[in-house]
Amino acid sequence: MSNNKNPHKDKAITTRDEDYSQWYLDVIRAADMAENSPVRGAMIIKPYGFSIWERIQRILDDKIKETGHQNAYFPLLIPKSFLSREADHVEGFAKECAVVTHHRLKASPEGGVIVDPDAKLEEEYVIRPTSETIIHDSFSRWISSYRDLPMLINQWANVMRWEMRTRIFLRTSEFLWQEGHTAHATQDEAAEETAKMLEVYRVFAEEVMAMPVIAGEKSPSERFAGANKTFTIEAMMQDGKALQSGTSHELGQGFSKAFNITFLDQESKEQYAWLTSWGVSTRLMGALIMSHSDDRGLIVPPALAPTQVVIIPIIKEGKDNSEVFTHVDLIKSECAQNGIRVHIDDRDHFTFGEKSYEWEKKGVPVRIEIGPRDLENHSVTLVSRTADDKQQVSIDSIADSISQALVDIQATLYNNAQERLTSRTFVLENYNEFKEKIEAGGFFSLSWCGEAKCEDQIKDETKATIRCIPFEQNTPATNCILCDQPAKQRAIFARAY
Amino acid sequence: MSNNKNPHKDKAITTRDEDYSQWYLDVIRAADMAENSPVRGAMIIKPYGFSIWERIQRILDDKIKETGHQNAYFPLLIPKSFLSREADHVEGFAKECAVVTHHRLKASPEGGVIVDPDAKLEEEYVIRPTSETIIHDSFSRWISSYRDLPMLINQWANVMRWEMRTRIFLRTSEFLWQEGHTAHATQDEAAEETAKMLEVYRVFAEEVMAMPVIAGEKSPSERFAGANKTFTIEAMMQDGKALQSGTSHELGQGFSKAFNITFLDQESKEQYAWLTSWGVSTRLMGALIMSHSDDRGLIVPPALAPTQVVIIPIIKEGKDNSEVFTHVDLIKSECAQNGIRVHIDDRDHFTFGEKSYEWEKKGVPVRIEIGPRDLENHSVTLVSRTADDKQQVSIDSIADSISQALVDIQATLYNNAQERLTSRTFVLENYNEFKEKIEAGGFFSLSWCGEAKCEDQIKDETKATIRCIPFEQNTPATNCILCDQPAKQRAIFARAY
Repeated sequence: MSNNKNPHKDKAITTRDEDYSQWYLDVIRAADMAENSPVRGAMIIKPYGFSIWERIQRILDDKIKETGHQNAYFPLLIPKSFLSREADHVEGFAKECAVVTHHRLKASPEGGVIVDPDAKLEEEYVIRPTSETIIHDSFSRWISSYRDLPMLINQWANVMRWEMRTRIFLRTSEFLWQEGHTAHATQDEAAEETAKMLEVYRVFAEEVMAMPVIAGEKSPSERFAGANKTFTIEAMMQDGKALQSGTSHELGQGFSKAFNITFLDQESKEQYAWLTSWGVSTRLMGALIMSHSDDRGLIVPPALAPTQVVIIPIIKEGKDNSEVFTHVDLIKSECAQNGIRVHIDDRDHFTFGEKSYEWEKKGVPVRIEIGPRDLENHSVTLVSRTADDKQQVSIDSIADSISQALVDIQATLYNNAQERLTSRTFVLENYNEFKEKIEAGGFFSLSWCGEAKCEDQIKDETKATIRCIPFEQNTPATNCILCDQPAKQRAIFARAY
Repeated sequence: MSNNKNPHKDKAITTRDEDYSQWYLDVIRAADMAENSPVRGAMIIKPYGFSIWERIQRILDDKIKETGHQNAYFPLLIPKSFLSREADHVEGFAKECAVVTHHRLKASPEGGVIVDPDAKLEEEYVIRPTSETIIHDSFSRWISSYRDLPMLINQWANVMRWEMRTRIFLRTSEFLWQEGHTAHATQDEAAEETAKMLEVYRVFAEEVMAMPVIAGEKSPSERFAGANKTFTIEAMMQDGKALQSGTSHELGQGFSKAFNITFLDQESKEQYAWLTSWGVSTRLMGALIMSHSDDRGLIVPPALAPTQVVIIPIIKEGKDNSEVFTHVDLIKSECAQNGIRVHIDDRDHFTFGEKSYEWEKKGVPVRIEIGPRDLENHSVTLVSRTADDKQQVSIDSIADSISQALVDIQATLYNNAQERLTSRTFVLENYNEFKEKIEAGGFFSLSWCGEAKCEDQIKDETKATIRCIPFEQNTPATNCILCDQPAKQRAIFARAY
């Protein structure tokens, strides 16, 4: 038996100035959100991290259903041959597929188990890196008439991409996501769907996650493998790097032709369906951390937080604490009546200090401390995660005070992030200036001729990629920042996660 | 391009008398719940089937959280060596593991893709058949003190067991489930947890699914691989066969010792933790179908049904239908106010007959038909899925009429299932009588000496297994039905899915 198994449990959080990458990992550890697993590149999402993901799921799932989609579930495994049917798609994913080749283990003469060579599969399967192929195969059977359209399907699932350099939440071999897959009678309808779902993501990012984003179209080289057009929302992290936070794809008819998804239109003419797909993943958890947290730990925006308010009773051992608990219950029910998500931390064996510290690291927006001294003044102590001071607030108006604090915190987080995005987005006309400034991070609005050659050279020389061609072209394009040919549009260049 | 891709879409449902197995598959097809996939033994859960599974998830998830558990997420893949650590566990699962051996595909010179031999993994992974090993590995890091206990974790996940004979929902290579995994300081606490979660399952089965069950303990030979004790709820299907509907396991300290899950107790003495696990799966969908459905299709108990009431407006083409739609909206909002889950089927391109038939096959408990003729009498037509007649009910008391119909249907389904369970459970003392009667199905309460030898011989001779040793021993045990030695208990023997 071994002892003291968690020596680093209470290790301090590295500051952002000191080491931003280490700070990110420290926040995840300190908030008890997730950890690396014994499986290469795969993470374990711990209960607190998962409760935040469940909030993301619930809110987005409601939106996905409101917009007419239905959830379904398709197989984890995809026959190898399916992947090859759409040429760009297989090109994009073949290199990172986990492959199932056998269906049985057997006892090894040397102890333990070995793969049973007699249980080799005739055709190998890959673990889904994304589900277009297996879902489109179903669509080909489900769709036969215009009456079956639009077909609006969503799936919450685990997927796997064998990444070489992994980073918890941001790039893991296995991750969780939702993937929408739809089929339409016309190209216009498919385009409308793609735009609608990107807008759902934008609103979610900005209103729930307090994370302003730039919405726009990806350049051809950054498109999803098999898509005609890819749209994205891009957020700026605290270090000035971009994080792609949600994508929506017009797939055109490429997959329809590969999988024979046809329908008889109202004139009984056979047509290929127009497809879309769109998704967000547990990457959003990384975006959350790097949008709002500080050197003391995570900060969760109130609209997202599983726990918006934690109440910590201050107990005196050996004394009568009943008045404290009466008021704790009172405040709890006041909160519940006002739709505030509240948790009472009445654990034994933990000191008041340990509890306060834990909830601070976990980024719960509001902490209420209540003890005999507070009650003498018929008040409690309210601590906002984004403010430095402690406030005494009256018990009589406690729900109002908490609600106001939550509104303030949500606004503060959004405004800080918006301020960062604005102040660190640069409209430049000079390539050398760009090469110099990119070293400090930020988004760069640059005129681009549209040629992959220029995009590639910029990437090689600066490590910056085109995050998107924003829908809102605030400044007119001039000549390409690199080749000086006339440019039709500005693109946002940045280094990215 | 191919046409008429769904020739069997509207094929009639085989009657139960004709062919019970085919009837089961026909109901699934007719209700559009699920279908087989191109992946061996794996199913596709279609939107309607998935909406029922989502209801199961939501209701159980609330219960699991109310009882103090938190959700988390662990890797899909399990290092092969983990499986071997607990001897019984690997013995139970090695033969049905999908094995990941490579992490890359590459283009084949003959077209398509092949497994890249250079991307062979050093250690293979299996796709989780269940997650004890990977979760217990985490527990060994997460638990160090009595303050960390009890640790109460649940996971909703897909799992894979390479079954040779598969049957949609009942036995599929991939299925969805929840798996609870907990650690406790004492054996008593672990036993209490195991009993508590079995009770959660029992109440869910009986009160939500309207499915009476027998709760009890499994015989040693039917235990979960690695458990000290396994408890189960067993339901009787319409053909008299048993379906194991949920299990809860006392794992003792076997896994704790294999994975070194220790904690310092209050006296700073190191102890091994006591573990449990418990789960229900998409098998419950099979139990649902075979508990209640009839020759016209599925019947979903109102407490479970995603849609409790469907309203079908009767539209006259070319006429003014506004009065019908006004009343449809009125009834919808009346339903919503009373917490009734309602859906309006206002699809164009589908006839009234097609719609009625579809909802009947999908087993929606109540159908409301409303047309100009109904409105003349200020009434609507209410069709209950379990009654043969159509009722005219007044619009003024519509919510009450619907609520009453839902209560009646839930009771009817439970009572029918209870009546079946009672009338087809036989307390027998004579082995030859049992051998004769088992051919017609049913549960058999037989005295059993407790020896695996007798259990095995009975299984060989009758295909009946011990479903459980019921907690409620209504009839005292006599002598073992086979060996005639004194028996301490009666066990329920039955053929099972």
